[in-house]
Amino acid sequence: MKTMEFWFEFASTYSYPAAMRVEAAARAVGVTVQWKAFLLGPIFKAQGYESSPFVAFPVKGRYMWRDIERLSAKYGLDWRQPTRFPRTSVTAARIACSYGDAAWLPAFVRAIYHANFAQDRDIGDDAVVRDCLIALGLDADAVLAHVTSAAEKPRLREQGEQAAQRGLFGAPSFVVDGELFWGNDRLEDALDYAQR
Amino acid sequence: MKTMEFWFEFASTYSYPAAMRVEAAARAVGVTVQWKAFLLGPIFKAQGYESSPFVAFPVKGRYMWRDIERLSAKYGLDWRQPTRFPRTSVTAARIACSYGDAAWLPAFVRAIYHANFAQDRDIGDDAVVRDCLIALGLDADAVLAHVTSAAEKPRLREQGEQAAQRGLFGAPSFVVDGELFWGNDRLEDALDYAQR
Repeated sequence: MKTMEFWFEFASTYSYPAAMRVEAAARAVGVTVQWKAFLLGPIFKAQGYESSPFVAFPVKGRYMWRDIERLSAKYGLDWRQPTRFPRTSVTAARIACSYGDAAWLPAFVRAIYHANFAQDRDIGDDAVVRDCLIALGLDADAVLAHVTSAAEKPRLREQGEQAAQRGLFGAPSFVVDGELFWGNDRLEDALDYAQR
Repeated sequence: MKTMEFWFEFASTYSYPAAMRVEAAARAVGVTVQWKAFLLGPIFKAQGYESSPFVAFPVKGRYMWRDIERLSAKYGLDWRQPTRFPRTSVTAARIACSYGDAAWLPAFVRAIYHANFAQDRDIGDDAVVRDCLIALGLDADAVLAHVTSAAEKPRLREQGEQAAQRGLFGAPSFVVDGELFWGNDRLEDALDYAQR
């Protein structure tokens, strides 16, 4: 079975359309997705950025908001510009790391992105994360206890180190057999590569 | 007749596939292209960059070379990584400004890009620019004298100011009725917008 790693960060605007599209697009061509959450903060710091490049370079940031609005319309995705950017999302990222192989994980990831970029909800607030878990019929208390346990807590940092080892510098990214594709615009190329 | 501005810089790697594709893609959907050369240097300086972001952020630069190689293969374009990047290209840009409406201009633009990104020739050297003009059956001496005349020389700077007024921050860019699209990946979306 061909597999593709999908690297995403919940605060990342361009990860939103990628996260909403990746499962159906991959399934259509027989590729299995490995869901890999990571935090961009340490990656940006290593490049010398204090925050998102869209904050550091305001002219690029203004363009990005308009571009994402257009892309959302093109893909038929709900969209509302968040009043805070970038939002922290450590708990959601921990869940995505610890439950990367769970059948419900893709739906959870989409729910968090929808909360951030279509509902303008604070995904850094554990109450919002809980709502997303409960809506999927999950035991939110058990999930939150598990991902903050001593055994599980290091996983997000470890996955971040894995991201750096793969040469990732932004999100979303796709990795197929060590070949890196950066950006929502490269989803189709990455899937083509997986089928080569 | 619908028109689309195509903003390009000869040193810009992602402007290469865009420049090679734009005329045929626009013609196929009945859109007229306005060819707009500009220099990225002043635009990058205004954002706080000393050189290309691909030089300032090496991990992004390494990815870009691989990505352009893949894109060139995808589009069926010749490709050889230039031994110098970014190359200066003031004379070629002056010609593209002064002769923006000439019937031969698109072929000249493609010839310069091919010299830089498929032949690794120094497009900052007037001898290379001359070769491209002569290969198109043009009077190279007359063209070079014209673009460096007192009347024509300010045009490149003026076009650069026009680029800044439009909010451009990178190349290639497409502008349709004031709507900005950034990057080779947005050529099709810009053409869709021109036909809305």
